[in-house]
Amino acid sequence: MTEQRSTNKPDRRAELRERLLSAGREAIAAGGLQNLKARDLAAAAGCAVGAIYNVFDDLDELILRIGSRTLARLAQVLAAPAAGPSPDAADELVRLARGYLDFARAHKLLWRALFEHRLSGGRAVPSWFLEDQNRLFALLDAPLARLLPGEPAPARAQLARTLFSAVHGVVSLGLEEKLAPMPAETLDAQLECLVRAFAAGLQDRD
Amino acid sequence: MTEQRSTNKPDRRAELRERLLSAGREAIAAGGLQNLKARDLAAAAGCAVGAIYNVFDDLDELILRIGSRTLARLAQVLAAPAAGPSPDAADELVRLARGYLDFARAHKLLWRALFEHRLSGGRAVPSWFLEDQNRLFALLDAPLARLLPGEPAPARAQLARTLFSAVHGVVSLGLEEKLAPMPAETLDAQLECLVRAFAAGLQDRD
Repeated sequence: MTEQRSTNKPDRRAELRERLLSAGREAIAAGGLQNLKARDLAAAAGCAVGAIYNVFDDLDELILRIGSRTLARLAQVLAAPAAGPSPDAADELVRLARGYLDFARAHKLLWRALFEHRLSGGRAVPSWFLEDQNRLFALLDAPLARLLPGEPAPARAQLARTLFSAVHGVVSLGLEEKLAPMPAETLDAQLECLVRAFAAGLQDRD
Repeated sequence: MTEQRSTNKPDRRAELRERLLSAGREAIAAGGLQNLKARDLAAAAGCAVGAIYNVFDDLDELILRIGSRTLARLAQVLAAPAAGPSPDAADELVRLARGYLDFARAHKLLWRALFEHRLSGGRAVPSWFLEDQNRLFALLDAPLARLLPGEPAPARAQLARTLFSAVHGVVSLGLEEKLAPMPAETLDAQLECLVRAFAAGLQDRD
């Protein structure tokens, strides 16, 4: 009896976490971060409001865990095609940037929540979340290594973050409503222009 | 008497607008957009809450007008030094990007509010606000014209927006807390690397 309870309790906790993560993901996908309310989550997951805080430290942790899964899905979508010869490095960087844009278009509110959410009280983002981000930057490492064979790995890691940030800027100002609206083809062309010019300019420098 | 009233009324309206804009700016600079409350603004400006809506359509307009002034101050800070020979085009683009980063560092919450604010009900940003943005992009036009003498003006305008967006991405992910923290010198170096590689790559293409 005691044994059964001790094996079941973690399962029930894991199931409740799963139901809350799924309800939270749906709430953000439907109406953005401001649509995430503890009371609605508890109702959707069939638990008391207080039970949320038995399985998550706070709503910030729940939001970060949802973000972590968004990043994992993005990394999966962007992963290089399995077979075939290695593509030209600049073509591969364009493919990754374009994949990022497509993902942001298709999952706009979940993607926006990744950047909009801020931890209350100025707390630092936990290391497990930063590792999820690093797995994304790491996708840029192989094409950057082919582009710049002489570049040491730490410098490549900096370039990956720089390129990701620049691509993110074009995608985010292109998709959000703060600048003049932009036709989809123009945004696609801007992104390709950025990545190709950056890649060519880096090679020049080498 | 009637005449006096008719000349004074616009003055009083203009003064109230000014006091509300100034109170709003201080509230955002002190605690971000979420610190902007109609009740506090009215108290700071010495008017009734309802009087705000006599001089602004709504709080969205007030926020956009504050943003417009932030953009004007940024454009002023970035304007090219008056005298002396034209600098190298890439150096001038680096100077502008660096000026943008410095402004964002110095006025972090006012700068963040420019991008964080979204109009309620999916309304489009008014054209006067887009013109303020265009004045900023226009600062990139002269160095881009020197860099790419053969490029037609509409293509240069697209490049200015692409470069601004890319620079904004590096600045914004570098200054916000969502990615691993970054020392100031590393961010400065990333930004310069982005602008120089992009400029060199564009010249290659020409």
